[in-house]
Amino acid sequence: MHDLTPEQTAALNERHRERMARKKAMIDARIAAADKQVGILIVNTGNGKGKSSSAFGMAARALGHGMKVGVVQFIKGAIKTGEEAFLRRFPDEVSFHVMGEGYTWETQNRERDAAKAALAWEQARRFLQDPAIGLVVLDELNIALKYHYLDVHAVIADLLDRPIMQHVVVTGRAAPPELVAVADTVTEMKVVKHAFAAGIAAQAGTEW
Amino acid sequence: MHDLTPEQTAALNERHRERMARKKAMIDARIAAADKQVGILIVNTGNGKGKSSSAFGMAARALGHGMKVGVVQFIKGAIKTGEEAFLRRFPDEVSFHVMGEGYTWETQNRERDAAKAALAWEQARRFLQDPAIGLVVLDELNIALKYHYLDVHAVIADLLDRPIMQHVVVTGRAAPPELVAVADTVTEMKVVKHAFAAGIAAQAGTEW
Repeated sequence: MHDLTPEQTAALNERHRERMARKKAMIDARIAAADKQVGILIVNTGNGKGKSSSAFGMAARALGHGMKVGVVQFIKGAIKTGEEAFLRRFPDEVSFHVMGEGYTWETQNRERDAAKAALAWEQARRFLQDPAIGLVVLDELNIALKYHYLDVHAVIADLLDRPIMQHVVVTGRAAPPELVAVADTVTEMKVVKHAFAAGIAAQAGTEW
Repeated sequence: MHDLTPEQTAALNERHRERMARKKAMIDARIAAADKQVGILIVNTGNGKGKSSSAFGMAARALGHGMKVGVVQFIKGAIKTGEEAFLRRFPDEVSFHVMGEGYTWETQNRERDAAKAALAWEQARRFLQDPAIGLVVLDELNIALKYHYLDVHAVIADLLDRPIMQHVVVTGRAAPPELVAVADTVTEMKVVKHAFAAGIAAQAGTEW
């Protein structure tokens, strides 16, 4: 950028202005067309980083807009996470429920895990029936569905039966196709590279 | 699950236990091998949802672990976001800096945008030189690099020169290959589907 003549710089700036004006017209038209205000069902899946952290970032956004948030963490729970420690500081705004007992490979007990998942779903249903809660985070629910601890059709029925303006975020690898089919926004977090593969530990503040 | 004989259920539970025991052994070995504790550079890119929200979820995690967080938002700024409103509630823990003036297609002025990006990078550098800050969020930095408002090599030099234990998260579509090359963890957020395409507006609490 440093060796352009004044004429070249002016031309570059003008091309930028024209390109951005076209982009603005296109985006304004798309925004005008997308005018429905309705609670959405978001699914974050894939093997990459960012599924749960994105859900907790949405929780921060929702709190910034004065909404109440309900969180159920499925599967996780052996380690006290940073998101739990932080969000528990706002008990009037965030209701935080952890299923407990760590990841499924720690317990190695299918029936106990399934019973715990069913109890956690009871808590999720209470959030999904409460119109005062603007955002429900169902962290790692996909894992409970993958192992058939919960019935995907019963879960979907409860999700679709929620208050019209309530948003829901579901996270976890291997989202079942039935859930993807009924969701409004689905993102696959894809690994391009991961520090863990280079021998770097999962660390406080980034991974948990 | 409901019509199995007791013998079938016992066999299913035993297969689950064996599978999870193998998984636990594999994961424990991988965790033992990945023992480096070091600040990591994370890049969230791609066209899908979750790049910025994941960075703010990591901010929540870091705060839960008692870390201090520095945020610079490039490009965004015309709309007051939920993450900004929320994180500004903790001025002793979070230092929040917004470049302002909205997205580049709103200003349509390359030189003004470039000057603002340079000022925002000065703030980012102050965070990157402060070992008291455990996590630096550089939201939408990739957009400033894509439009060459900032020189990618100068940015990378500052990133690599940061305190050894400091984590950094960079977000935005179209991360430059030079940045991907030096990052520790890179995730591509891929659109599987998006509510916007179905005519649903970007809404408070989920998108901003």
